[in-house]
Amino acid sequence: MATVETRAVVDLLGALAYAELTAFDRLAEDARMAPTLTGHAALARMAAAELGHHGRLTERLVELGADPVAAMGPFVAALDAFHTSTRPRTWLEGLVKAYVGDGLAADFYREVATFLPEPDRGLILEVMADTGHADFAVREVRAAIASNQKVAGRLALWGRRLVGEAITQSQAVIAERDDLAQLIMAGTGDLSGIGRLIERITSAHTDRMRALGLNP
Amino acid sequence: MATVETRAVVDLLGALAYAELTAFDRLAEDARMAPTLTGHAALARMAAAELGHHGRLTERLVELGADPVAAMGPFVAALDAFHTSTRPRTWLEGLVKAYVGDGLAADFYREVATFLPEPDRGLILEVMADTGHADFAVREVRAAIASNQKVAGRLALWGRRLVGEAITQSQAVIAERDDLAQLIMAGTGDLSGIGRLIERITSAHTDRMRALGLNP
Repeated sequence: MATVETRAVVDLLGALAYAELTAFDRLAEDARMAPTLTGHAALARMAAAELGHHGRLTERLVELGADPVAAMGPFVAALDAFHTSTRPRTWLEGLVKAYVGDGLAADFYREVATFLPEPDRGLILEVMADTGHADFAVREVRAAIASNQKVAGRLALWGRRLVGEAITQSQAVIAERDDLAQLIMAGTGDLSGIGRLIERITSAHTDRMRALGLNP
Repeated sequence: MATVETRAVVDLLGALAYAELTAFDRLAEDARMAPTLTGHAALARMAAAELGHHGRLTERLVELGADPVAAMGPFVAALDAFHTSTRPRTWLEGLVKAYVGDGLAADFYREVATFLPEPDRGLILEVMADTGHADFAVREVRAAIASNQKVAGRLALWGRRLVGEAITQSQAVIAERDDLAQLIMAGTGDLSGIGRLIERITSAHTDRMRALGLNP
């Protein structure tokens, strides 16, 4: 554990800090599509929680002697591209993205966090803990499907598209960040270790799609 | 004080709760116009603070036996109209709106709060306390004017437009809410009391415009 490069930790915290800032942006934007003030406020609260995480991560970056803006820099293009290519057109698409997309990202960051020493491992696990997206999104999406079964097909396609775009952008980022790639290689042990990591993330994704009442 | 109608208190808290929710929306939206990640995060933090206030106000509405969504309802049209007619086109317009517009609103709510019994008076004064808009906006706007004097003229016009739209929408709201109008009339005492209230609000607005380096 002591051999983990600070540069890799800074990379991971920087990626996550920018991910949380864009999660704030996106949830705040999607909140305005809510059909009710209650839904509006619920998504806005999730956005505010993500921004709180962003603050925790930038504080830790400063502690590590890194400039948060510089640490986030390398991940801006990929994360912005992800959000541009997966902009929800409806309230329900926004909820599926909040639940399925953030779930995928959280699983990935949690897996990598286990390769880090404390306090960074604990910090990442803590900020990735569910902020209430799950219950709210599942309830709303299931209710929408119950009242109109056609919704399920469209949202299932949308869920698959989110995964595809997430994989594309993650690969692009990891390919460019040597220290981060090194950290993942060293942590998983070998290619079959990476295979198992991907399998765990995929399986959790399948569970989330089913929880929403969607075919994975 | 004991004679203040609960309906008037619910009106005021409802108006304020919806104002804070829209302040969240708008600051979150304007944050994305920031030229730097630091500015982006700064405005996002202000947005999250407004949402915290929204939560405090809806909790108090529930305590009073009111349904927060119903309490906010009468103010949705006017506040949405205000924001639609004053949508910032630039980062600097957004900052002026955050500082000057929210300052005006805060002064108005604070004046009316003094007519209320506790704990509502204290709650309103607390959520209206500056959430850091002031320093950040003043610094950014002054720096922009320093590097390009032409900016000042356009932003001064923008500031005047904000006041005009705010007055239009406030009058529309008060004209329709009898209990709220009654509360303001009873609190100020008479027409000259209302005149002094408007004078205090106008004078504070003038001070804020000058602080930004703008002609009021």
